[in-house]
Amino acid sequence: MIPVQDALEIILKEIKPLGTETVGILDALGRVISEDVFAKRPNPPWDNSAMDGYALHTADIAGAGKENPATLTVIYDLPAGQVPKAVVARGQAVRIMTGAPVPDGADAVVMVEATKSPEAGKVKIFASARAGENIRKCGEDFKQNDTVITKGSVIRPAEISMLATIGCPLVSVFKRPVVSVLSTGDELVDINEVPGKGKITNSNGYALSALVSEAGAKFIRLGIAKDTKEDLTAKLKEAINADAIITSGGVSVGDYDFVKDVLKGLGSDMIFWKVALKPGKPLAFGVIQGKPAFGLPGNPISSMVAFEQFVRPSLLKMSGRNDIFRQCISASLDKDIKVKPGRMTFLRAELTSTDGGFIATALDGQGSGVISTMVRANSYIIIPADSEGFKKGAIVKCQPFDSSVLSGTNTSY
Amino acid sequence: MIPVQDALEIILKEIKPLGTETVGILDALGRVISEDVFAKRPNPPWDNSAMDGYALHTADIAGAGKENPATLTVIYDLPAGQVPKAVVARGQAVRIMTGAPVPDGADAVVMVEATKSPEAGKVKIFASARAGENIRKCGEDFKQNDTVITKGSVIRPAEISMLATIGCPLVSVFKRPVVSVLSTGDELVDINEVPGKGKITNSNGYALSALVSEAGAKFIRLGIAKDTKEDLTAKLKEAINADAIITSGGVSVGDYDFVKDVLKGLGSDMIFWKVALKPGKPLAFGVIQGKPAFGLPGNPISSMVAFEQFVRPSLLKMSGRNDIFRQCISASLDKDIKVKPGRMTFLRAELTSTDGGFIATALDGQGSGVISTMVRANSYIIIPADSEGFKKGAIVKCQPFDSSVLSGTNTSY
Repeated sequence: MIPVQDALEIILKEIKPLGTETVGILDALGRVISEDVFAKRPNPPWDNSAMDGYALHTADIAGAGKENPATLTVIYDLPAGQVPKAVVARGQAVRIMTGAPVPDGADAVVMVEATKSPEAGKVKIFASARAGENIRKCGEDFKQNDTVITKGSVIRPAEISMLATIGCPLVSVFKRPVVSVLSTGDELVDINEVPGKGKITNSNGYALSALVSEAGAKFIRLGIAKDTKEDLTAKLKEAINADAIITSGGVSVGDYDFVKDVLKGLGSDMIFWKVALKPGKPLAFGVIQGKPAFGLPGNPISSMVAFEQFVRPSLLKMSGRNDIFRQCISASLDKDIKVKPGRMTFLRAELTSTDGGFIATALDGQGSGVISTMVRANSYIIIPADSEGFKKGAIVKCQPFDSSVLSGTNTSY
Repeated sequence: MIPVQDALEIILKEIKPLGTETVGILDALGRVISEDVFAKRPNPPWDNSAMDGYALHTADIAGAGKENPATLTVIYDLPAGQVPKAVVARGQAVRIMTGAPVPDGADAVVMVEATKSPEAGKVKIFASARAGENIRKCGEDFKQNDTVITKGSVIRPAEISMLATIGCPLVSVFKRPVVSVLSTGDELVDINEVPGKGKITNSNGYALSALVSEAGAKFIRLGIAKDTKEDLTAKLKEAINADAIITSGGVSVGDYDFVKDVLKGLGSDMIFWKVALKPGKPLAFGVIQGKPAFGLPGNPISSMVAFEQFVRPSLLKMSGRNDIFRQCISASLDKDIKVKPGRMTFLRAELTSTDGGFIATALDGQGSGVISTMVRANSYIIIPADSEGFKKGAIVKCQPFDSSVLSGTNTSY
């Protein structure tokens, strides 16, 4: 058996980011940017008002207050979207809206709430101001040619806001991997069929496709390969048209030689491992005609755990991501956990956020075929290979596999 | 000014989940299930082997071990996908593959690694076993008619695995809200244009559309409404065809009456608030011809913060979600924070997971137009309205607005 970390390292060495493509920024949400983005222009593009109010000379309102307002002459109104008509001279003010360019001469804006207009063309200012007050300076967000988004960033609404601000309707992103998903085994029937005795539905084909989607890649479902050399060879030849190949089943002791023969026939150097991972021990990996191929175990939970640990980081790396690993969160165990040492064990768990930190509950029903436990879980508890478990209250590493831990039914303000 | 919580409560009272639709399960990823799902059949569907090995009578191998194996007669091979050919009698065994139905008579499976086949038709068993060992019992995952997924669940790969296992190719989900996104203001130009002096790009139209997408809803971009009664009325009449309406700009002091008039003309009861939220104070909300309408402020960051606090929970509620609020995470401040009390303040921050818990870094540049800070942030630090800030080391509430806190560049095993 080889350690999980070693298998992962060997696999990731073979994985390279795919090429790039240009897409509209609203199609780029969740994609990975493939080059640094520089600002074509500064932001703000010019000094502008942060408030609705009056642009003026601070020297004209020095010492002004509630009891002793300064009175200025309003020379014009300046709505957002228009340009200043004239320089502001001493004793003058311009009625300015949020976002409008600050006219030359003025060195501050006093917000409208601190003013009163006693007659047309006049304004009383009931406060003093310091120079620059309520003025957003040109370039205070970023300057022309600043790097505003770095290569490898995931494009979120914030990045789209940035791209729109600097006038980039299109953006270069890494291509999304296209992944063939193939299930193997004579016991499998499609989910539309009622399985006879001895048969089960091809749930892995769907679960693995969903995991591929969830990793931001595209799946091609190739259905079920029968346990014959001919069928498996034909299906794998189709599968090679994608950027990566995932199979499930056919990698445990009994199937080993058969699948190995087929893969050799396709010119691949597959490595078959017993990985020190529970669930998910049997694993095959290789590169077939330049495409990474992952042979996952057939048990539903084993294949999902192996996907999470080996395939997901690989697909994210192909997608240009830097943060390709699920981040572990420390949590306090709410009951004792006992495991057989020897393999890194992934227990399906419920991770709950509390004011005192995270609590981890290992769920009942950890068999590698027990899907209901996966439905109830939002995280794995990771037990190191040399550990026999932990006591209640121990701090353990949890690997959330969905973002439900970041959502709640209360505002929690 | 009204508190954030009060505004949110008033808004959510008006929001109802949309209707439902039936989709293929692989199109349902991320959607919300609209009814409890019951199992059509138990899982496992029959007792089956958890291992490649030999199905046998435990009584025949009582006391067997490395030194004193029991020898049994192998009556047939049973690959996965096939049905048992005959009952196993005392003294007999069946060579069985993982997943195959356990033949009648046998009460345990001994894994192949603990056996040896000295000649065809015979097997030596080098271990004893307890009854039930390596047998997955029919229904141990779930029984027929068990509720296997509950209404309101978000469909993840685990739920898709479950639906595939019970043979459900289709699933009923809540409809995704369709949301009109409209920006207002004469100062705006589309992002393809080079803005002249006094003009800026319509970044909100893109950022808010991305936020709508990110909330699992669909956006319709209606572009820019000019500050005329005619144009705004025409654009809003279009907007009403969606399930919800978002506008940005036109809700602060200077614009108040104008927009109010237009909305009254459309028969809506809009409420204009100053919400005790920073950034994001001005907010309008109402129901126009049955559709919720959100008038967000025009400043880029203000509109994103207001979206997160008011619109996102509303869209998730329309989508049938129960966990509609971003969950706060407790984190330790890495430097002092000072704010003006009076409004609930959302500071853009970087939240980092460490072995000792989460660390929150409030970023420099908190102006409501500073987009570069939003690009660097992954979370808000929430400062209660009555607080003047916190000291370094204090535990504060952080609201992550993306899942980057759950991803890392190292495995962190």
